[in-house]
Amino acid sequence: MVEPATDTVAATRVVPLLKDELDIVIPTIRNLDFLEMWRPFFEPYHLIIVQDGDPSKVIKVPEGFDYELYNRNDINRILGPKASCISFKDSACRCFGYMVSKKKYIFTIDDDCFTDLICCVIWVCLILDLFVFSVLINLQVNSVNVACFFCKACQWDSFNKIVAKDPSGKAINALEQHIKNILSPSTPFFFNTLYDPYRDGADFVRGYPFSLREGVPTAVSHGLWLNIPDYDAPTQLVKPLERNTRYVDAVLTIPKGTLFPMCGMNLCFDRDLIGPAMYFGLMGDGQPIGRYDDMWAGWCTKVICDHLGLGVKTGLPYIYHSKASNPFVNLKKEYKGIFWQEEIIPFFQAATLPKDCTSVQKCYIELSKQVKEKLGKVDPYFDKLADAMVTWIEAWDELNPSGSSAKVSNGKA
Amino acid sequence: MVEPATDTVAATRVVPLLKDELDIVIPTIRNLDFLEMWRPFFEPYHLIIVQDGDPSKVIKVPEGFDYELYNRNDINRILGPKASCISFKDSACRCFGYMVSKKKYIFTIDDDCFTDLICCVIWVCLILDLFVFSVLINLQVNSVNVACFFCKACQWDSFNKIVAKDPSGKAINALEQHIKNILSPSTPFFFNTLYDPYRDGADFVRGYPFSLREGVPTAVSHGLWLNIPDYDAPTQLVKPLERNTRYVDAVLTIPKGTLFPMCGMNLCFDRDLIGPAMYFGLMGDGQPIGRYDDMWAGWCTKVICDHLGLGVKTGLPYIYHSKASNPFVNLKKEYKGIFWQEEIIPFFQAATLPKDCTSVQKCYIELSKQVKEKLGKVDPYFDKLADAMVTWIEAWDELNPSGSSAKVSNGKA
Repeated sequence: MVEPATDTVAATRVVPLLKDELDIVIPTIRNLDFLEMWRPFFEPYHLIIVQDGDPSKVIKVPEGFDYELYNRNDINRILGPKASCISFKDSACRCFGYMVSKKKYIFTIDDDCFTDLICCVIWVCLILDLFVFSVLINLQVNSVNVACFFCKACQWDSFNKIVAKDPSGKAINALEQHIKNILSPSTPFFFNTLYDPYRDGADFVRGYPFSLREGVPTAVSHGLWLNIPDYDAPTQLVKPLERNTRYVDAVLTIPKGTLFPMCGMNLCFDRDLIGPAMYFGLMGDGQPIGRYDDMWAGWCTKVICDHLGLGVKTGLPYIYHSKASNPFVNLKKEYKGIFWQEEIIPFFQAATLPKDCTSVQKCYIELSKQVKEKLGKVDPYFDKLADAMVTWIEAWDELNPSGSSAKVSNGKA
Repeated sequence: MVEPATDTVAATRVVPLLKDELDIVIPTIRNLDFLEMWRPFFEPYHLIIVQDGDPSKVIKVPEGFDYELYNRNDINRILGPKASCISFKDSACRCFGYMVSKKKYIFTIDDDCFTDLICCVIWVCLILDLFVFSVLINLQVNSVNVACFFCKACQWDSFNKIVAKDPSGKAINALEQHIKNILSPSTPFFFNTLYDPYRDGADFVRGYPFSLREGVPTAVSHGLWLNIPDYDAPTQLVKPLERNTRYVDAVLTIPKGTLFPMCGMNLCFDRDLIGPAMYFGLMGDGQPIGRYDDMWAGWCTKVICDHLGLGVKTGLPYIYHSKASNPFVNLKKEYKGIFWQEEIIPFFQAATLPKDCTSVQKCYIELSKQVKEKLGKVDPYFDKLADAMVTWIEAWDELNPSGSSAKVSNGKA
């Protein structure tokens, strides 16, 4: 199902797409050994690593990658009091990376590829660097269905997670597919039954209005996951063994007026078009809720994309999601959200934005007012969140003063 | 890609699903030899064959099938003056079959599997019934990418079209997949990124509201086509060689508020839930337009499903569409529709139905009024169509007096 991206695979691409226009944002609490898996695909790009948790911890990034790394001290220093809008001890902190990027496009991906146990084993491997030992570990790894890697000497044999394979056995260059998705238009106003009409071998079917065939700019490309599906805690508890093995070879536009559960695990977006709406909210330390950071961003983003006539695509690419997070921990984080979403979703489904909201920032500020007014009744948390939404936009505009992020040199270290 | 459905394949099913609750409706102008291809899958079911064109022509149906056949004389006799609402010299006549069915479910499929040339060749085969000759024809058939069949003696070797194969090489039982689609709920109010959550190995993803997980009844299952895609004439002209080879292993609900181009080639629906909206309009002989019969039904159906809280699914199953219809002939049929759809689609997108429209019939009559009022300005054809919509409902109610079609014994021969 999965294998590492090899140099051979990468060699088939001549020039990496959008090399100087895209940043890869990774939130992490650990060494980024998982990048080895993605090396041929990610190495040409600039990485923005947002270190969560203890800022004194040193995060190791494999050699050869071009990156900038921000820990909590950096975030506090750069944003000052406005740093309060960036979550702590939660991967929601990744949105700080969106804010400090200077590029037009963002690709964000999770680094969850190991269990702690296997991490320890890998350290032993790194120290010993013995091929025989690595084979033994590899067997162990396969039995527990998580990844193991340590060096290039083993010819990547044990790097059998993270990078998914398509049904032909080829390693999926997730980033390349996202870029294809985002550089081709979306079709939110009418459904095309053969899915993305701009893909090779596809087109608009009979009955599709010709006036809509130009499509609209794509703001978001939402990728999926093989192996561990992105389930909530109750579903994880009920179906602990369920794995997603179905490779659906499709990309489609989520129609206008339809909300979807946006997952931040494998996501690409156009900062210039929608960046300020990609706020991952207040989660984690000191907050009553977790695991709704990407959902929140997804709801806000979709409402604003619909208002501004922008497209959101979902489907390909797949990444291989190797680690099932702990459902008991997840339930604790989610349980308020499980109640709240029953009111939040109707709120977003009914939300309309006035015509004078012509920029993402204006839309977002308007949405924050509506959140305060309508969701504030649900829980005081939403008052705080609405304030944080305003702070986020203020911080965004401070770091991106011209509005067009791609042309801005921001104030970060 | 495709092969006949063999008895071995069919033998894996013990009892055909919905055997006594589903009719297969086929519009035709020729002998139904194509049924041989579907024998193992269709033989347990009752067929309603609607013969288009010259009623004096005798249509041959392969032995062993349980069927009733209606030609134009039958339609005129059964419906009297109301027969005016049933199209002539157009496959839109198929909707007469929906009306006379006594069953809860309808599956409808096209019979277009041969070019005329190959039909002649097949007749020679039927007469000679020589295996050696059949092999020669088979070679010929493969080279022009159309189907050939004549008898069982050839072990189906040349029956290499119509029934599509899934990527594992298994013949696709289209009807079985439609039944699965229609017997499981739809999810029109929120998009599930892993597609149909009711399929084996799938579920609702994180962030999907629990209150919406029961879904709503599915009224329509819209299947797709491998090989010849369902393109309009301009696209056919521009891309004469394009073939659909992408097997997308997904079924999804078309969200509420989103219209889609419904193709009648491979379609299943619940008569009780949506039957009276499945009117295929006035097409063909004496009408200014063709090839919009299924589109019209799709627009009306979707608006009414959205109003009544019913679901429409699209995706699997695939059938193998072997014959590309003549794009020049199609252009002649379509060209007014190409203009008109630019006004029709916004009309349907904006259409709302009042709360007291609690049945499909009431919705449809209300829609006919709106068509007359708003589309009558586009062309006098829509006045006539609006009247025909009313006639259709009158005829439907006459043949299905209790409202619930499944319990009705109608007046047909």
